[in-house]
Amino acid sequence: MRGPVVLLTDFGLADPYVGQLKAVLLRAAPEAAVIDLAHEVSPYNIVQGAFFLAASWPHFAPGAIFLAVVDPGVGTERRCVMAEAEGRWFVGPDNGLFTLVLNRHPAERAFELDCEAGGASRTFHGRDVFAPAAAALARGDAPESLGREMRPQALLRAEWAEPKSFQGGVVAHVMHVDRFGNCVLNLDIDQWLPTVAAWDSLALLHPVSRPLSLCEVYGRLPTGEAGLLPGSQGYLELAVNRGSAKALLGLGIGDMVRLGRAAPPARGRTRAGK
Amino acid sequence: MRGPVVLLTDFGLADPYVGQLKAVLLRAAPEAAVIDLAHEVSPYNIVQGAFFLAASWPHFAPGAIFLAVVDPGVGTERRCVMAEAEGRWFVGPDNGLFTLVLNRHPAERAFELDCEAGGASRTFHGRDVFAPAAAALARGDAPESLGREMRPQALLRAEWAEPKSFQGGVVAHVMHVDRFGNCVLNLDIDQWLPTVAAWDSLALLHPVSRPLSLCEVYGRLPTGEAGLLPGSQGYLELAVNRGSAKALLGLGIGDMVRLGRAAPPARGRTRAGK
Amino acid sequence: MRGPVVLLTDFGLADPYVGQLKAVLLRAAPEAAVIDLAHEVSPYNIVQGAFFLAASWPHFAPGAIFLAVVDPGVGTERRCVMAEAEGRWFVGPDNGLFTLVLNRHPAERAFELDCEAGGASRTFHGRDVFAPAAAALARGDAPESLGREMRPQALLRAEWAEPKSFQGGVVAHVMHVDRFGNCVLNLDIDQWLPTVAAWDSLALLHPVSRPLSLCEVYGRLPTGEAGLLPGSQGYLELAVNRGSAKALLGLGIGDMVRLGRAAPPARGRTRAGK
Repeated sequence: MRGPVVLLTDFGLADPYVGQLKAVLLRAAPEAAVIDLAHEVSPYNIVQGAFFLAASWPHFAPGAIFLAVVDPGVGTERRCVMAEAEGRWFVGPDNGLFTLVLNRHPAERAFELDCEAGGASRTFHGRDVFAPAAAALARGDAPESLGREMRPQALLRAEWAEPKSFQGGVVAHVMHVDRFGNCVLNLDIDQWLPTVAAWDSLALLHPVSRPLSLCEVYGRLPTGEAGLLPGSQGYLELAVNRGSAKALLGLGIGDMVRLGRAAPPARGRTRAGK
Repeated sequence: MRGPVVLLTDFGLADPYVGQLKAVLLRAAPEAAVIDLAHEVSPYNIVQGAFFLAASWPHFAPGAIFLAVVDPGVGTERRCVMAEAEGRWFVGPDNGLFTLVLNRHPAERAFELDCEAGGASRTFHGRDVFAPAAAALARGDAPESLGREMRPQALLRAEWAEPKSFQGGVVAHVMHVDRFGNCVLNLDIDQWLPTVAAWDSLALLHPVSRPLSLCEVYGRLPTGEAGLLPGSQGYLELAVNRGSAKALLGLGIGDMVRLGRAAPPARGRTRAGK
Repeated sequence: MRGPVVLLTDFGLADPYVGQLKAVLLRAAPEAAVIDLAHEVSPYNIVQGAFFLAASWPHFAPGAIFLAVVDPGVGTERRCVMAEAEGRWFVGPDNGLFTLVLNRHPAERAFELDCEAGGASRTFHGRDVFAPAAAALARGDAPESLGREMRPQALLRAEWAEPKSFQGGVVAHVMHVDRFGNCVLNLDIDQWLPTVAAWDSLALLHPVSRPLSLCEVYGRLPTGEAGLLPGSQGYLELAVNRGSAKALLGLGIGDMVRLGRAAPPARGRTRAGK
């Protein structure tokens, strides 16, 4: 038996939607453990949902089934899919939600689900299409019995995921602002920390100009000063010790930032003449 | 053994109340599955709680026990009850919370619980009266051992549940506004969709005047236009594609709306003379 | 086997942090029940977290493991600890979070955990240090194998916990404001209700001057009037029937209040001369 079923949605907790989804899982796979990863993804925010998945999936053992629903196009043409990568299953709409996972760990298998199956509502595929598929996987059903196999390369991988380098810096964006005001950038630690650490000085260049410390622990930043941290989520974060980077820097989810070497101090004439 | 125990409250998640309720369930019925349906019912909002129950109970198999606490009168005269309908149990205050369920599926049995049992606090019957009763049901205790049998017809059924028809339309109200701004009306799809679909034109008449599309999928509405949908929750919803009906129409929970045929265009004299 | 593992954090539910913590627990102790006590402790608010623990731990049977993370100093000098009191285990940072529990129930044993163990992130000890320790306890591991034994008396007990008496009254503070606007004071019912009940009149003296009823049930307070209640959480609460004490009295978490005998009415000359 596979499991647990890990839930990621933008349903919030003020509606009965998550509870109904769990009702479906419980009926179809009563033995499966169900874990809430997060339900407060901003409505329709595929980028934030993709980040939550990428930051979290490695903490779950192979066999885990991610039931991920951030689905502004529900009921229209986007596909309903499930894909296997690194021994985990990802079930949800094919709208870019799995981009950050798939960019580093291409899917080995993928299947297209029937979005119109047996009386599914047109507005709640999470409950009526994706949850039944996830429950069937948890029960151990063969994926071939649940959908039509498709080429894994045909899964949508969105372009917003890639930062853009320029001479002496990088254009990135804020994928998530956490409860503490930390701003998570689309800069993978493995890939970008060596680059940034090699710069002789570090600054935020846009939307405001500000020197940054490169630092490993919130508490080591001078109080009130902004820093760049290799955070616990696998990406570089803008952070402020006991304060909010969001507030200090005026940033929100989706905002573009430029990081790079601080502009060198203007050189005096005598040296310039050398 | 019965189960799961399904929790519906207005306790929110910022307090330790839900956790304490689960502590009681775990001690008294360690084998029972416990599922959160919703805890963010607006404080004291019995209508919204009643809607959540009505929309959700059919997704749970017979044997489910709904522990429902939206209870402004805690500690005063309202009864503590548990009732069986359609093979499920409903445990909570007798204040109208079960109205929408009972109107369509009258209870077969009902019992009154002792609100003063063994050291119960006067302010937290959810933890001290209802959770122990739900746990005992989950363990398989006979309901007769938990309370005094009462006539099911004596359970309170509130009057707010009924929409009022008028010539060419209906007065309804907003039972719930979801995270996406969809406004759920007290218009049961089975009962009202045929009526509404038969009107030759559809409009919101109050609180603002506005034509409405009757539509099955959010994504099929022209962006920014309001529609009426047979939603996934069993009731008609006012909705806007990728927008908020709440914001566009200025609606909130509890608001009254009038729906009906759009006013016919004024007829010219020549035809009127015929 | 011990259990359940009971989670208390200030992580909120809008981030994937709680889900990741559960992933670690599930991998290391798949059989352990996991219960959410609360995750919406105000960021960094140790007092509020301490209150949630003190109000809730007795509802869980011996064997329960409280994994409590409100940890502004993560990555700095504060110790990572686990302590046993009244048959329950408390795992978290040694920053005062366990003060209210320990003041009444001194720990019998305590252990210091290695905060730098095996690749722990510097910013997320909840997931990387405390959860593995709690999971190991749940599996039944000997605590000696998890950390270095320390004197229980060396655990930090913060001073904010004690109210200060004065002639005819007491200075207390608001540890928590609940969803309904009830303001919970650091006045333990067992210790303070007899004192307050003995006063011939009761008033709030600061920050506003206002008579208070001493009352057992919200619904018994005249609508809109403030009262002092022995609440369900083990502490005295300022409350308003179907209203918000927070709003009426202008109180927030952390605010200081003075309660005491109401000032006696000014006596007339003739009686004063007696």
